[in-house]
Amino acid sequence: MSDPQHAVSRHHHMTLCVGDAQEDYDFHTQVLDLKSVKKTALYDGVVPIYHFYYGNDMGEESTLITCFPMRQSGRMGRRGAGQISKISLSVPTDALAFWNARLVNHGLDVVESERFGEKVLQFAHPCGLDYELVGVSGDGRVPHTGGEVAREYGIRGTHGITVSVHDFEGSMEFMQDGWNGTRTAEDGDYIRYEVGNGGTGTIVDFKREPDLPIGSWTFGENTVHHCAFQVESLDIQTEVKAYLEGLGYTDVSDRKDRGYFDSVYVRTPGGALFEATVSKPEGFLIDEPYDQLGHDFQIPPVFADKKDWIMDYLDKVEYAR
Amino acid sequence: MSDPQHAVSRHHHMTLCVGDAQEDYDFHTQVLDLKSVKKTALYDGVVPIYHFYYGNDMGEESTLITCFPMRQSGRMGRRGAGQISKISLSVPTDALAFWNARLVNHGLDVVESERFGEKVLQFAHPCGLDYELVGVSGDGRVPHTGGEVAREYGIRGTHGITVSVHDFEGSMEFMQDGWNGTRTAEDGDYIRYEVGNGGTGTIVDFKREPDLPIGSWTFGENTVHHCAFQVESLDIQTEVKAYLEGLGYTDVSDRKDRGYFDSVYVRTPGGALFEATVSKPEGFLIDEPYDQLGHDFQIPPVFADKKDWIMDYLDKVEYAR
Repeated sequence: MSDPQHAVSRHHHMTLCVGDAQEDYDFHTQVLDLKSVKKTALYDGVVPIYHFYYGNDMGEESTLITCFPMRQSGRMGRRGAGQISKISLSVPTDALAFWNARLVNHGLDVVESERFGEKVLQFAHPCGLDYELVGVSGDGRVPHTGGEVAREYGIRGTHGITVSVHDFEGSMEFMQDGWNGTRTAEDGDYIRYEVGNGGTGTIVDFKREPDLPIGSWTFGENTVHHCAFQVESLDIQTEVKAYLEGLGYTDVSDRKDRGYFDSVYVRTPGGALFEATVSKPEGFLIDEPYDQLGHDFQIPPVFADKKDWIMDYLDKVEYAR
Repeated sequence: MSDPQHAVSRHHHMTLCVGDAQEDYDFHTQVLDLKSVKKTALYDGVVPIYHFYYGNDMGEESTLITCFPMRQSGRMGRRGAGQISKISLSVPTDALAFWNARLVNHGLDVVESERFGEKVLQFAHPCGLDYELVGVSGDGRVPHTGGEVAREYGIRGTHGITVSVHDFEGSMEFMQDGWNGTRTAEDGDYIRYEVGNGGTGTIVDFKREPDLPIGSWTFGENTVHHCAFQVESLDIQTEVKAYLEGLGYTDVSDRKDRGYFDSVYVRTPGGALFEATVSKPEGFLIDEPYDQLGHDFQIPPVFADKKDWIMDYLDKVEYAR
């Protein structure tokens, strides 16, 4: 028998509601030099919204940032507590000076900082979302290799998320009892959890901001929608869902086929939406070969019989690479 | 085509995590004189926990209070914001004096109050949960008729819930955009929404308590777990779920067969867990006839092959009526 309490192993992907599609694409592929591993659209709802996946060459788990550009829909989000407020990506510690210069050259404001003893470059996605590059030594994940940034400097993948909360207690219970988390550190108003075996790509920081108004949970520009975590198999995912339901988290979603992985979602007591995800064996190669990966727009099943309409509807984007 | 935005019509039931099973049963059947319309156990999890349903003679929608007595499990809840903090039931305005005397005779502390222009008797469930009887004129719902309390005084059903929140904004959006709610009043730190056609049995009050620590979301003694609302058909429920998912509430649960109704759950931005429920055509008569309604313990499907074990496991309760 497996142990659903210990099933969550690391980040799988982080999903952001951003602004303009072109701006988001250029930021992730040209500034951060991530690979566009898939171009598709949101599987939920009736209004087409792009869904762009960025990651390393194969879009491996824990290298993935995915974005819903909301500008065309006109739906704005409201930043605040009860939300994932920051995305942190891992780069080699030796690469921080390179990245500082590169981000500044691209016109971004960069602030050097330190948290939990880690050196951090703080900047913002063009839509306003808080981003960080964190210097990490010995991160074995392979970066995107085909781009402008040399392999020695490339982004290794996700490092952590920061969840802004009014208080810690419910989040601590959820991480410990429900999400295979261990509390590993605290720093000022922050506490750190790491899931699974811990380390970069497994981190969930909670920042206590009791006076910050609560942010929005709907799809809306300038908010993070959710963070997905990897679990190993559909059987284990089923057990995780039942286990959380047994604790009283009755809103765990049904399993959703997201094309490249299968997902269940749960709202966590700090307000952030988490997801437990199982990659399909074929991953992102399920609908295009490696040498074409991320090249063509993939119509999501919900719009399968409306291909011409959705292509005509969605804002045009120039894909430079 | 139906309109999922306007599908939620009124309360269906409210579900509480209480303390001792005997104490809860006696309180609801002897003090409040509700009918025990079903005795079963929680369908989720692996540890048996009673599930008692109380309501009018048939257990009609919006007359139902249901309880998980948690004492045997040892699981305590933590009251706070981000929770349903109060349950209000409707009685005829002329019956308030009767109820005040009756509650006092049963040893309860009763406070007379007024909110939204309604006369209110405040008291507490023996486990500590805040209860109210609210004087309502012209409530056409039929009370339990077989008990100690004369029909003219009997509890008509649910009146409203109070959700304690740190701020209103997300809740207002959810009620308006997602849950067929209309803002009908405000009173001090409270705002009132009514769903569907409005009136008693449809009310959701939000109380702004920015300094109250966040309460727990898991099954735990002395917390309200969720409030269920009625929708008319499974097709409409499917549309409500898809509609909420399209807004970004991706954690809407799968449809769960609760034996007497089918339910989907969603966590709302104020923190309360809501449910959209479709009664089965047979309702509570699905497993026992009217003249036996609520008499025998009904083994939930999850424990179907462990009848002797669950009957032996669960604390014994004396069912006086």
